[in-house]
Amino acid sequence: PRTKQQDPAVEHDLYVTLDDIARGCTKKMKISRKVMNPDGVTSRREDKVLTINVKPGWKAGTRITFQREGDQGQGKIPADIVFIIRDKPHPLFKREGSDIRYTCKISLREALCGTVVEIPVLQGEGIPLDLTREIVKPKTTKRLQGRGLPHPKEPSRRGDLIVTFDIKFPEVLSTSAKEILSSVL
Amino acid sequence: PRTKQQDPAVEHDLYVTLDDIARGCTKKMKISRKVMNPDGVTSRREDKVLTINVKPGWKAGTRITFQREGDQGQGKIPADIVFIIRDKPHPLFKREGSDIRYTCKISLREALCGTVVEIPVLQGEGIPLDLTREIVKPKTTKRLQGRGLPHPKEPSRRGDLIVTFDIKFPEVLSTSAKEILSSVL
Repeated sequence: PRTKQQDPAVEHDLYVTLDDIARGCTKKMKISRKVMNPDGVTSRREDKVLTINVKPGWKAGTRITFQREGDQGQGKIPADIVFIIRDKPHPLFKREGSDIRYTCKISLREALCGTVVEIPVLQGEGIPLDLTREIVKPKTTKRLQGRGLPHPKEPSRRGDLIVTFDIKFPEVLSTSAKEILSSVL
Repeated sequence: PRTKQQDPAVEHDLYVTLDDIARGCTKKMKISRKVMNPDGVTSRREDKVLTINVKPGWKAGTRITFQREGDQGQGKIPADIVFIIRDKPHPLFKREGSDIRYTCKISLREALCGTVVEIPVLQGEGIPLDLTREIVKPKTTKRLQGRGLPHPKEPSRRGDLIVTFDIKFPEVLSTSAKEILSSVL
């Protein structure tokens, strides 16, 4: 007897938010598949719900396989159904492994003369960041430890929230302003 | 008769400078190989010089193959010798395809009040860049057209020299300086 062939896996992207990844979540995905009737010749379409437990900290690219959940057909093994975790873009944060990156916009005046900014976090209230005792430079970064995403293998440990700064320069300066700046800087 | 087997290709990295890539150059590489004696059984080592004509604009990763220049041996096909072009780090420029990137360091005072800088180029004298009529920001870039590397398929066309700016902020500012800055910015 010929060995049964299996179709290549059917892949679906599963977009999750950083909040989903931070907490973990359950996603129910409805698939529609061809199912053989008892006569072994005719088939019908059937809906089925597959449940995916997204664990805290899962990385983009994580594959979840449901074996043989593809279309049934005479003399073949149904294909595997694979969901691949994808990051849904977040309006504030960019993911970097278990760290997340936030770009804080401040003016050049604030960068030089000092300011206190509020850094948003994934869960809970924003954290004040005191920048009054330093000069913020274009390459300044701050790490808020443990404010990132859970480590996938050790969810009680969390990555960091990395803050970088986008320093807004003035668009124009008067000649007299330039003279003053030139004498002070 | 059994078909002769060939060993996998022997790969060597060939580091070239951006100047070499800009002009094109000839590299002579000495290899040492096992060569069969006329008796067909014993062998000797022999040096051989392979000549590589590096064409203007060749990209890192370009592979140059010398067929069957590896060790000779009874009943086998000598391996191919492959050289792979690699970029030797340049002290001033970073390669990006046919463009090259230069980071120009200026002080915050120069960025705000204006300056003229000299931009070094790969071949020839530096080019003055007038920044007196604008405010240079951390994300400001300038393109000096045609000052990059030759396009590998059309060496008469060249990429650009992209200038980015590393703006040096003051390390400390006195309270009075901050007050003045705060009123001007």
